[in-house]
Amino acid sequence: MTDPSPDPARLDTAGIQKRLSAFRDERDWARFHDPRSLTLALAAEVGELAEALAWTGDGDAAIPRDAAADELADIATYLLHLANALDVDLGAEVERKLVTTRERFAGLLPGTPSRAHGGAA
Amino acid sequence: MTDPSPDPARLDTAGIQKRLSAFRDERDWARFHDPRSLTLALAAEVGELAEALAWTGDGDAAIPRDAAADELADIATYLLHLANALDVDLGAEVERKLVTTRERFAGLLPGTPSRAHGGAA
Amino acid sequence: MTDPSPDPARLDTAGIQKRLSAFRDERDWARFHDPRSLTLALAAEVGELAEALAWTGDGDAAIPRDAAADELADIATYLLHLANALDVDLGAEVERKLVTTRERFAGLLPGTPSRAHGGAA
Amino acid sequence: MTDPSPDPARLDTAGIQKRLSAFRDERDWARFHDPRSLTLALAAEVGELAEALAWTGDGDAAIPRDAAADELADIATYLLHLANALDVDLGAEVERKLVTTRERFAGLLPGTPSRAHGGAA
Repeated sequence: MTDPSPDPARLDTAGIQKRLSAFRDERDWARFHDPRSLTLALAAEVGELAEALAWTGDGDAAIPRDAAADELADIATYLLHLANALDVDLGAEVERKLVTTRERFAGLLPGTPSRAHGGAA
Repeated sequence: MTDPSPDPARLDTAGIQKRLSAFRDERDWARFHDPRSLTLALAAEVGELAEALAWTGDGDAAIPRDAAADELADIATYLLHLANALDVDLGAEVERKLVTTRERFAGLLPGTPSRAHGGAA
Repeated sequence: MTDPSPDPARLDTAGIQKRLSAFRDERDWARFHDPRSLTLALAAEVGELAEALAWTGDGDAAIPRDAAADELADIATYLLHLANALDVDLGAEVERKLVTTRERFAGLLPGTPSRAHGGAA
Repeated sequence: MTDPSPDPARLDTAGIQKRLSAFRDERDWARFHDPRSLTLALAAEVGELAEALAWTGDGDAAIPRDAAADELADIATYLLHLANALDVDLGAEVERKLVTTRERFAGLLPGTPSRAHGGAA
């Protein structure tokens, strides 16, 4: 008898959150990882992404894709550290949110303008 | 013969990125999902997290944990939409970054102050 | 007969906004100064301020005051460019907001907790 | 003998900073106005501006100008509170920055692409 395989369509962050908390503890950084400090660090990384896209125009051609990808990884890293600091399972939160968002937009016809085109709010 | 199981300690975002792009396409939202628009939406969600923590002080007791967890999910959702818009495998980027960060801080003694206590930069 | 002196307690941004629009036009930068681009640039500067304060703790001693002051100037500069791009008199908006905020908090006793301790919302 | 009139092309924030610190002290809010809390509040307001512009596209027609102007005032208010918290004369910092920026871009021909088209960095 084996455990069922994890659903590959669900985001599973348990493993990476554990690795990042080990990474943090090896360096004795837990004392820096309060939610406010990590939120400021997260805002700094989002600022770097914003800087990379500030003068490119909306056309895709000029987008510095590699620089942007690098910033996405930094943002994700602090987001996972934040989830650890708040003792939150980020993957479970994303799943929960996706279900409620799906319900919220259930009756919306394709192409209908919405306040939040990412589904988040 | 089966594929090897995925390494549970690595962040695998392939499945969730596929689901989110399907969610987007069912609503005909791809035309809204350029990198700059999504970055502005991401900054808006980070702003909501910042607002939740602005007046709490650094002590953990007052942290509105559930509200914060909700914002983390919204941030993660736009981050994954951004990865899709930039055609980036977010999990692979996080892994790549974690490896280089580990090397960068390899000689750092525990507790040594660092400019970036999350490991990102 | 002379004009009345401007009220020194009101923020007058007309002169600086004019200088900044001249600065912009001398460099032929108006085509870059759409509201979205400037908002991304503003978010980048706020990110730099956030980075300067991310690991300092709430105690004032460790605050890098000069670096923070420098970021405040950058934020103010993009904010004034944004006001120009939106054809807004920033000083007048601040005055208008301050009056309505004063009314909103008129009955609030000193020290009463408020959702927005800056008066903004 | 009278003092010379203030240069109207310089941003003078002394009066408004004094009014805002009086506004703060009347409500006994100084204890909330540490630099980190105000930076989080500032990031929240920038997030509201970003949200107002996230789905408009770069064309000016769809820009919600009044909502944006309102957010600019909120951002300016927290920026001035931050200047107070850091004991900084914001107008003087903007002037200092404008002079150095003018020197930095002195040799730049009109229309030359620059990393920072606002002049800030």
